[in-house]
Amino acid sequence: MAGRRAADQGPRTARDCGVTLTATQQAEIAAARAASGATHRPSVAALEAMLFTPLPVLDHGFVRVIDYMGDDAAVVQAARVSYGRGTRRTSEDAGLIRYLMRHLHTTPFEMCEIKYHVKLPIFVARQWIRHRTANVNEYSARYSILDREFYLPAPAHLAAQSTNNRQGRGEVLEGEEAAEVLALLARDAGQCHDDYALMLNEDGAAGRRGLARELARMNLTLNTYTQWYWKTDLHNLLHFLSLRADPHAQYEIRAYAEAMMTTLDAWVPLTAAAFRDYRLGAFTFSAGMLAVLRRMLAGEVVTQAESGLSKREWVEMMAALERG
Amino acid sequence: MAGRRAADQGPRTARDCGVTLTATQQAEIAAARAASGATHRPSVAALEAMLFTPLPVLDHGFVRVIDYMGDDAAVVQAARVSYGRGTRRTSEDAGLIRYLMRHLHTTPFEMCEIKYHVKLPIFVARQWIRHRTANVNEYSARYSILDREFYLPAPAHLAAQSTNNRQGRGEVLEGEEAAEVLALLARDAGQCHDDYALMLNEDGAAGRRGLARELARMNLTLNTYTQWYWKTDLHNLLHFLSLRADPHAQYEIRAYAEAMMTTLDAWVPLTAAAFRDYRLGAFTFSAGMLAVLRRMLAGEVVTQAESGLSKREWVEMMAALERG
Amino acid sequence: MAGRRAADQGPRTARDCGVTLTATQQAEIAAARAASGATHRPSVAALEAMLFTPLPVLDHGFVRVIDYMGDDAAVVQAARVSYGRGTRRTSEDAGLIRYLMRHLHTTPFEMCEIKYHVKLPIFVARQWIRHRTANVNEYSARYSILDREFYLPAPAHLAAQSTNNRQGRGEVLEGEEAAEVLALLARDAGQCHDDYALMLNEDGAAGRRGLARELARMNLTLNTYTQWYWKTDLHNLLHFLSLRADPHAQYEIRAYAEAMMTTLDAWVPLTAAAFRDYRLGAFTFSAGMLAVLRRMLAGEVVTQAESGLSKREWVEMMAALERG
Amino acid sequence: MAGRRAADQGPRTARDCGVTLTATQQAEIAAARAASGATHRPSVAALEAMLFTPLPVLDHGFVRVIDYMGDDAAVVQAARVSYGRGTRRTSEDAGLIRYLMRHLHTTPFEMCEIKYHVKLPIFVARQWIRHRTANVNEYSARYSILDREFYLPAPAHLAAQSTNNRQGRGEVLEGEEAAEVLALLARDAGQCHDDYALMLNEDGAAGRRGLARELARMNLTLNTYTQWYWKTDLHNLLHFLSLRADPHAQYEIRAYAEAMMTTLDAWVPLTAAAFRDYRLGAFTFSAGMLAVLRRMLAGEVVTQAESGLSKREWVEMMAALERG
Repeated sequence: MAGRRAADQGPRTARDCGVTLTATQQAEIAAARAASGATHRPSVAALEAMLFTPLPVLDHGFVRVIDYMGDDAAVVQAARVSYGRGTRRTSEDAGLIRYLMRHLHTTPFEMCEIKYHVKLPIFVARQWIRHRTANVNEYSARYSILDREFYLPAPAHLAAQSTNNRQGRGEVLEGEEAAEVLALLARDAGQCHDDYALMLNEDGAAGRRGLARELARMNLTLNTYTQWYWKTDLHNLLHFLSLRADPHAQYEIRAYAEAMMTTLDAWVPLTAAAFRDYRLGAFTFSAGMLAVLRRMLAGEVVTQAESGLSKREWVEMMAALERG
Repeated sequence: MAGRRAADQGPRTARDCGVTLTATQQAEIAAARAASGATHRPSVAALEAMLFTPLPVLDHGFVRVIDYMGDDAAVVQAARVSYGRGTRRTSEDAGLIRYLMRHLHTTPFEMCEIKYHVKLPIFVARQWIRHRTANVNEYSARYSILDREFYLPAPAHLAAQSTNNRQGRGEVLEGEEAAEVLALLARDAGQCHDDYALMLNEDGAAGRRGLARELARMNLTLNTYTQWYWKTDLHNLLHFLSLRADPHAQYEIRAYAEAMMTTLDAWVPLTAAAFRDYRLGAFTFSAGMLAVLRRMLAGEVVTQAESGLSKREWVEMMAALERG
Repeated sequence: MAGRRAADQGPRTARDCGVTLTATQQAEIAAARAASGATHRPSVAALEAMLFTPLPVLDHGFVRVIDYMGDDAAVVQAARVSYGRGTRRTSEDAGLIRYLMRHLHTTPFEMCEIKYHVKLPIFVARQWIRHRTANVNEYSARYSILDREFYLPAPAHLAAQSTNNRQGRGEVLEGEEAAEVLALLARDAGQCHDDYALMLNEDGAAGRRGLARELARMNLTLNTYTQWYWKTDLHNLLHFLSLRADPHAQYEIRAYAEAMMTTLDAWVPLTAAAFRDYRLGAFTFSAGMLAVLRRMLAGEVVTQAESGLSKREWVEMMAALERG
Repeated sequence: MAGRRAADQGPRTARDCGVTLTATQQAEIAAARAASGATHRPSVAALEAMLFTPLPVLDHGFVRVIDYMGDDAAVVQAARVSYGRGTRRTSEDAGLIRYLMRHLHTTPFEMCEIKYHVKLPIFVARQWIRHRTANVNEYSARYSILDREFYLPAPAHLAAQSTNNRQGRGEVLEGEEAAEVLALLARDAGQCHDDYALMLNEDGAAGRRGLARELARMNLTLNTYTQWYWKTDLHNLLHFLSLRADPHAQYEIRAYAEAMMTTLDAWVPLTAAAFRDYRLGAFTFSAGMLAVLRRMLAGEVVTQAESGLSKREWVEMMAALERG
């Protein structure tokens, strides 16, 4: 399970993880959690229990659920275009959800919606925003001032360039090089933010007018934290997670995807289970791979050289067959 | 204002308007309304009061709200990327919402979502579906069988072709022609559905195997009723309403838009008021029209001939200036 | 392979297939084909040879390419964000395209665009329009009058309802039932169009004003032909084709998808080949199916009962393994 | 005209403006321009003349047209769902295009498509990407290494924070403060890029393994240049330009929008003229503003206090009436 790692560690709270919330922010969150009303809409107790509370990610980031619409039953209801809730026994609902997932009947999953508040480094935000079928409101550095908070990788994530994959990480840096890299990252981000503040001149130091915010922000480094509200439907959330909870995704965005897997499990457990089976844990065999598979199942010993597959395809197929 | 008509008539109920619901459907709706749960999410009492109940439209159609996410405060909250609810005094919230609407800052309105169940004639569904930024699950006539229900216009809506607008209606048909048209519409729709049922042969009449549903449906007329779940965000709902609650929209889809205006007023009253002011009741003056306006405000008497505007532009501008 | 059928039959021309074009329409198409200009843009000779010419589909429908942007090299160029054409040897380009396809790097495929003019029955148009990431201009029956042309299935496609799949076709109808069904379809569509024309009263028969076009159209049956311009990017075209050239798609829309496969092969042969390998001819094994596969490859005899898979999953997996 | 500024200055070339192209890049562009082929597709001579050539923007950026589909006639053709080119006299085409623009019939404009290669600072890219209905391939800093090029504002654009608009610029900074700000921006960007290169360790300096590219990039400042391929349809291009060529847009993105206005004028002159009249030069009067306008046209002297408009609305309305 992709969410397992997060779950294994147990739910971390903002307190023990370094999410820096001001007293005002903590009070606002507490007030939102204290409020409660009656609704005829379907509610999901497990997700209500998480509502508004930040799930810590990286050194200063978080994901928190702000609102949601629908549940597993709403997927079933939409697939049936029902007058009522449309659900039957749980086993039947699970079967229908599995059927919809397997056969790419994606529209019923679009009938659920979730809204997150996310705090994340700008370079992660730039990967994330490539998912276009979502609604976004980002904290505006044209209008407001960004805090002095940057992402600095934990030692375990400070990796060298991969030697065999131009788009990946190799082994973890150690010793002096690791120390030096961390020092450079910290120094440059800090220096840039200090100069940002200097140019803004918010306290009106004598003789300076202060550079426009929309210009001063260009001096910040890409590991500076920003934040946004991000809302999407369940189908597009699953698409996001299938790409970003994948081992090929960059660790930093994967950390967010894994925290969001926790919210998925709480929100729509039947859908989440089908998603793990048919997406996260699945592998697509091309026509060429299927031909090889048939030969192998017939008892033939097939080598890459005479498989008709490229080396890379062969490696990927064998990895899928050896997994588990 | 577009919503006014619906409001003037008072809320109609399914009972007095001919929405044909089976006993099972009524029971399902009643069960959904009877269910109630606690939630930390924002709720809107005025919309909760309408939830699930069909608002009748045309002769057999309806719109009913199935679910919603957010409220006016959620727009404000997203615009501020707040930790808490983000709202201040109602007057401040209203001012911010008006500012966002006026300056086309549309993304905060995308943070609210609404889901409808709609029963509507197929030709209306075909106009409606052109709005692509929405989620749709339609009742499948590949899989199920459509009821014997068609739209037949009320006498007041049985209009002649417009003589000056190729895309519009003229005066209402009367007397013999009206009667004949209605008779033809009723006869053809009925005949087609009867033959549809005959070809399907659901009761397995002897010696017939029954035509596949996905084929038999092609025999139905475009005024046959279908139904769907339709979900969209508040920004795209407003866009839909600005085009479909407009007097230039075909009456039949406008009837749906007007019923939905009622739900908008209940759900997000501040947004709805700003929408009436800045969209439904507004008029855009082109650069050429602004030049004419300046001359008129300076006291000059301007005629169409020397206005630089086409006849059609002149008529549209004058209509906007004389409205109210 | 899905495109095979169309290819087997050889390219049909409008002449031998019953596409009904007026002399004016034929002259317009001939004029467009006769025009030729110079461009610095990449052109594709094989697609230029097809440009504007209708490929017949069903009894009166067609698909014809109106315009296109880009080619296989444009996919490569975008993936490399190149200053020039960005292509290298064909084998390298093919390898990159296969890599992008396999790893779901879909954005470079979005950099090519194609525009079709399609004539199709309304019930097919209603399935087609569910693909939202496309641009559409449909012939307006609010404004214009639809011709008296309907789809009537060829005998080989007049199928009974499937007995084991509620959403599918069974055996072909024969004898008296087939004849009766065809007669009903033809009679009802004809009668409805005759009454449509009668209500419109275009020739101004005495004493009648004529029903508004936007209303009269509701009397038409769903097998009436409509037409539209439809434009999409290559990625979304492939997604459309993967669903609609699939054997599970309804025959009538699949017939269009297969004609479009011919245009795909002409336009972007490297992409088309990768698409057949990694999409059309591929099969996705779920985590559960992969576990079964591993047992089978280890020599174990696995039965459905102890596979952990549902009967339906088992059947689908076995079908994939026996294909080819 | 929004494009006037760019036009007034005459077309700048890469040579006199500091676009830094390597010899290889120049050769690739020259080769693309030298290639020419025959096509049956509509071509636009004025845009062909610009094809591939960078239009300089800011200090190191550019916009260049890579490909296009359609022209003014294609808009007309789609609106008419024509078999041939569908155009008539230019005056009729212009009239139809103006009608479509005025009445928000946007779909025919979606039938044209354009593809740009853009080099731009990252903070501009972050504003730009918010336009979601477009296709994007960005140069990947996970995979490749970004050049040492940053945006440094020209003295005329180094503005102070506005004192009355939290989201805007005030007067230009001068003297010592300007010099200091520029020095800080240059120093920090340079330092960050130097350390980026140091951490990457591309030349394999002894004893260092080099930080993964996907991590090292986080050390860059937001004024570092990136580049992408960006493709959109004409309707969405106009929407982009209406927001980004607007005086309220930040200067840096407006500079790109203005260069793109030049390409719009060359590509679709009738559409561009209608766009200037109905969008760029237009103003929308709310219902409340229309009421004030009627009083003014009737000769009444209206003050803000008794206008029913807020101060801000009053100022905006008066500005629109005094423009020109």
